Amino acid sequence: MHPLAEKVLARDMRGTARACRLADDRTGDYLTVLKELFPHTGRAWTIGVTGNPGAGKSTLTDRLIAVFRKQGKRVAVVAIDPTSPFSGGAILGDRIRMQAHFSDPEVFIRSLATRGALGGLSRSAADVIRVLDAWGADVILVETVGVGQDELEITRTADTTLVVMAPGLGDDVQAIKAGLLECADVFAVNKADREGADAAVRDLELMIALGGEVVKAGVHSRGHAAGTLDIQKQVVRHDAHKWVPPVARTVSTRDEGVAALVTQLEAHHTWLTGTESGAARRFERLREAMRTQLREALLDAAMGELGGALDEAAQAVAHRQADPYTAAERLVTAFRGR
Amino acid sequence: MHPLAEKVLARDMRGTARACRLADDRTGDYLTVLKELFPHTGRAWTIGVTGNPGAGKSTLTDRLIAVFRKQGKRVAVVAIDPTSPFSGGAILGDRIRMQAHFSDPEVFIRSLATRGALGGLSRSAADVIRVLDAWGADVILVETVGVGQDELEITRTADTTLVVMAPGLGDDVQAIKAGLLECADVFAVNKADREGADAAVRDLELMIALGGEVVKAGVHSRGHAAGTLDIQKQVVRHDAHKWVPPVARTVSTRDEGVAALVTQLEAHHTWLTGTESGAARRFERLREAMRTQLREALLDAAMGELGGALDEAAQAVAHRQADPYTAAERLVTAFRGR
Repeated sequence: MHPLAEKVLARDMRGTARACRLADDRTGDYLTVLKELFPHTGRAWTIGVTGNPGAGKSTLTDRLIAVFRKQGKRVAVVAIDPTSPFSGGAILGDRIRMQAHFSDPEVFIRSLATRGALGGLSRSAADVIRVLDAWGADVILVETVGVGQDELEITRTADTTLVVMAPGLGDDVQAIKAGLLECADVFAVNKADREGADAAVRDLELMIALGGEVVKAGVHSRGHAAGTLDIQKQVVRHDAHKWVPPVARTVSTRDEGVAALVTQLEAHHTWLTGTESGAARRFERLREAMRTQLREALLDAAMGELGGALDEAAQAVAHRQADPYTAAERLVTAFRGR
Repeated sequence: MHPLAEKVLARDMRGTARACRLADDRTGDYLTVLKELFPHTGRAWTIGVTGNPGAGKSTLTDRLIAVFRKQGKRVAVVAIDPTSPFSGGAILGDRIRMQAHFSDPEVFIRSLATRGALGGLSRSAADVIRVLDAWGADVILVETVGVGQDELEITRTADTTLVVMAPGLGDDVQAIKAGLLECADVFAVNKADREGADAAVRDLELMIALGGEVVKAGVHSRGHAAGTLDIQKQVVRHDAHKWVPPVARTVSTRDEGVAALVTQLEAHHTWLTGTESGAARRFERLREAMRTQLREALLDAAMGELGGALDEAAQAVAHRQADPYTAAERLVTAFRGR
């Protein structure tokens, strides 16, 4: 076994940090280490913490760590900062807030930022989560900063997705709410002592209580000639075993409602591991992850062999001598050696 | 030529809307249409409009449309809503705001939401932008709702990236600022009549004026044994021809500062098309786009041939009979037929 894999399994902090960095950077023997660690994974409960900026995700994450630690659980935190793809770093201020757990050997905190590669962040996140699973984390909290598609991808890596909101964050919150509704397993309306909290909770509960009838409305396209708004309505029915997301109220700065929130998160975990619907969802997620893995393995292999040809194709496209679709098809053919 | 491609080139609104939808849905003859349209692209100036939720991007976009229309330019708007990957729709409210341009035959507005596929959004965005380029748009405004990695990908598809901010949006704004700093070509501090606007402008200008010395600080990892914060500092020097992003102040609801903002956007366009640094950046972006195109073409081809094998691999991984890395490598080998 690779010495670094051994160190992770022996719960060596320094070695685990090094394995995480290796996985994130994709350098050295990272694949060997990840392959060797994989049979030792599958035990951790991964909770994604997402929601719009300003909702107080970091403080709430900090409180969740405290609750899980009181339960005697080993906790890992992966803080995702996709808004900073170039600086390769994470947000110092937010991390500093977790200082309370700084000296706790059963808490491991790791920040991740993409190195600029397309799709690189969710890939790194999945690998680092596996390292921390092998390290022996009982709970892995994955906190994302933004609310874009990549975060939703990461969220779908998690077993349980907690969506954190706060009242009074402006115009677009409504929009975010609409998008996150469908990936949330548990909602927390944080800063629940603020004005507008009741309305936020009511809105959410209404949407959920519509009995599973999610009205999907969207303007897809609008040209002058079309003249009318093109609104789609689609009704989706809940099945009997479907998980219905609860709404918790928290004031994380005063540690209010956090214990109740944890109870709701745990209920979701029980559903996930104890019901057929839960098992089906777990497999669906796994298949999606496998698809991503395949995509990246294909690209890695192709880039290794095609390097120069890709530049030539880009040049041809730049001069409009080829279109990018045909150029890509030709590269695929070249890669397959046919 | 495909009749739909002909309609786009003939500036038929209804046909263009249909071509956009085809490209977004990846159904029917979409590839044929895209291939045939490609030689007619390359003329449009694409401006990405991004920034944190609540900054007023939609209203500002609306104002920008008005300015470009006054210049006699044909304008297309692609509104990206990646926060709603499941509802397949866009935000009605925001789109309604653009009603002022609803009856203008030289303005084409199109909303995009991913269909849930990984990486699907930036892919659709790139294709729809090409359709609108072929339609004859002089300016294409691409507005994103979120601030995640996918938005940054889309942003990198654009020629010019406008980052919109507003004072007083809470804690995480600082974080977003840090991330967006490096992809912004022009900043707009919107809602500049609000308290905190001066400070926001000052902060930004300070960061930019540091003479190109971008201090990149990040806590990468922290284990108990490590004990210290692992802070990287890296100094990046501006070269003489590097673009330095200006900071505009706008109050889009009162149409203040928008004309000045457009002047700054145009200056960036001039840099991009008139200098060697600009040309280098354009090629870099194109190469990245080509890489994405290759990744997706590979996955499409592999999924078409491997469908069942992917499920089997996922099953094996679920039972820990295989690790996902080795399983993916085997699928690549199977795909190559070796």
